[in-house]
Parts: sequence; structure tokens; C-alpha cells
Amino acid sequence: MAPAPCKVRHAHRDDVSTILDLIRELADYEHELDAVEATEATLLSTIAFAPKDVESTSTSPITEPTSPSRPARCLLLFNEEGKPAGMALYFYNYSTWRAKAGIYLEDLFVRPTERKKGYGKKLLVELAKEVVATNGGRLEWSVLKWNEPSIKFYESIGAKPMNEWVGMRVDREGLTKLAGLLD
Amino acid sequence: MAPAPCKVRHAHRDDVSTILDLIRELADYEHELDAVEATEATLLSTIAFAPKDVESTSTSPITEPTSPSRPARCLLLFNEEGKPAGMALYFYNYSTWRAKAGIYLEDLFVRPTERKKGYGKKLLVELAKEVVATNGGRLEWSVLKWNEPSIKFYESIGAKPMNEWVGMRVDREGLTKLAGLLD
Repeated sequence: MAPAPCKVRHAHRDDVSTILDLIRELADYEHELDAVEATEATLLSTIAFAPKDVESTSTSPITEPTSPSRPARCLLLFNEEGKPAGMALYFYNYSTWRAKAGIYLEDLFVRPTERKKGYGKKLLVELAKEVVATNGGRLEWSVLKWNEPSIKFYESIGAKPMNEWVGMRVDREGLTKLAGLLD
Repeated sequence: MAPAPCKVRHAHRDDVSTILDLIRELADYEHELDAVEATEATLLSTIAFAPKDVESTSTSPITEPTSPSRPARCLLLFNEEGKPAGMALYFYNYSTWRAKAGIYLEDLFVRPTERKKGYGKKLLVELAKEVVATNGGRLEWSVLKWNEPSIKFYESIGAKPMNEWVGMRVDREGLTKLAGLLD
């Protein structure tokens, strides 16, 4: 399915309230609104934004430099009326065996009223284009296992589930504890 | 267990042959040596190395700038005799809900002859220290599900398995196909 008319570009600093709205809508959709600690200020200091006067796209990205403390870029999708309909927030991963960078998609969100228009696919295609344009290795993301419709959709566009792997995470108190484990 | 005496620092460009040796040993250990496409040249162009004349550590990292095409940093661990014994290759991840950067550990390797000395733990502690030093959010990595001894070890130092999630990956022909899906 070709997507309904839309435009995709990197977010400007002026878009930060839109980004926070979309993050909160995604969290609310997952019944986890309380888990959102992001504010406009913290988003402004951790996302590499595009300057307002240029059109920054996935194949010609022109944003602030990414860095260890500002690793993320954010693509916004605007519908045929120019209203923000979706978002892809991502950072750059690395494949050691191939010695290639790639993209990890941290959050993909399309507003519930804007679904079934091909916008999710459009955002994934844009990210694949960026990886290909930079001769990168992989486009990766994670999905909740119970979300079978999404997994089926992702498989239909060429993604493979990494069923033999499990992610491990250390955060909050666990992180402080691990950092001090040998002191 | 406190680790045996050792030193951990970021890799210099001069260390690239050591890094490639370690990558190949890791792949060989996993019976996947043929999967290694990395060369010294491609590692040199995709890892942010430390200058040779400074001591770059996880809490005071001084390396070439990271960027979308050079997202990785590499910590090397040297044993009590000053010989390379292990490596942690990592990049920077992002938590949208917390609006915080963090670290994703892509490859952790300790040479088989250097095991049982606490070196793996030492490298994980160094990475946790970097995340804490930058007020970051999460330290994450992946492990093969059948590797229960490793999972138990990781849990013992505070890591939680993300059992409800599955990773999705698009690479090689799948990536080119996805990039061209809407053309």
C-alpha cells in the first residue's frame, strides 16, 4: 500500500512540544503515562535537531551533531493537511563483525486517528533509505512479543525476529550499584 | 570477586590489529569466523579512537567525535602483564520516555585464557560508570538465550532480562528492498 500524501523531515527545536505530545500519547496508549519523565528541556538537550531554515531528510540529514549525550535524531511525519501524524525517534547502532554503523529505531508512533494510511511503513522506509545511503549495516528495533499484528507487519516488510536473543538492561539503582561494585 | 590487576582504556588507532584479532577470536569461539567482514580499514573508519598521548577512560572519555557513521567506542582491557585480554565495543542508545542517553554494549569479549579473573565484570562496571558519570539512563546489551551461565552472571550484577521484547532486524537484501518499497 502506498502511503497517503505526507511529508517526512527531521524535527526542529520548535517542534519539541509536538514531540513531547507524541511521546505522551504513545505512553498513554500503552497505559504508561506515568513513566514519561521527558520534558521539553531534556528533549532539547538530548536530540540532534535540524536547523529551521533547511529541509533535513533521512537521505540528506542536516542536524546538530550527534554525540554521546545527544545521540538521537527524530523524524516527524506530517499528514496531507500538514498536521503532525507520526514520529520515528532513532539513534545509531554498530555491527562489530561487519564494522558498519546502522540505525536503531527506539520509538515509532503514528497517532491512532492517522493509522491505516501507510505512515508507519513510510517512516520505516525512510530509515532504511538512510542506512542504505550511508552504506550502513542494519536497521533494528524491538517489539513486545504479544503484539503479533505488529510482528506480522514487520515481517511482511522484510524484518526478521531475533528470537534466539534476549536483551539485558541495567538502570536506576541497579546502575549506581554496578558502577560502584568494585570500589 | 575483585578483578585481577588490569588496566582499562579506550583503544588508539594503533590498537586496530588487536581489536581485529579479538573480534576474530570471538567469532571463532562462536564458530562464525566466516561471518567477520571487518578489516583494519573499516574498523579505523567506524570507531571513535582515543589519541595516543592521552589516557582515555570510561569516566573521562577523550576520543575522536562519535557521529552517525562512527558511532562506536572501544574499551580495551590489559592484564597484569600489559597484554590485551578483553574488549568492550559499544555505542550510545536513547530512552525516549526518560529523554536520556545511555550505552548499548555491542560486544564484550575476554580471551579464553584470561577468564575467571573478573575481567568481564570489570568492563561492565566501567561502562556503568560512564553512564552514571553522564547522568545517563540505561546500560543494555543482548545475550543468546541458550547461554544460561552468562544470563545468570548478568543477573547477579543487577541486569534484568527483557523477556517480553523481541528484536527485529532488517539487513542486506532486505534493507535495499525496504528502502525501495515505495519507489
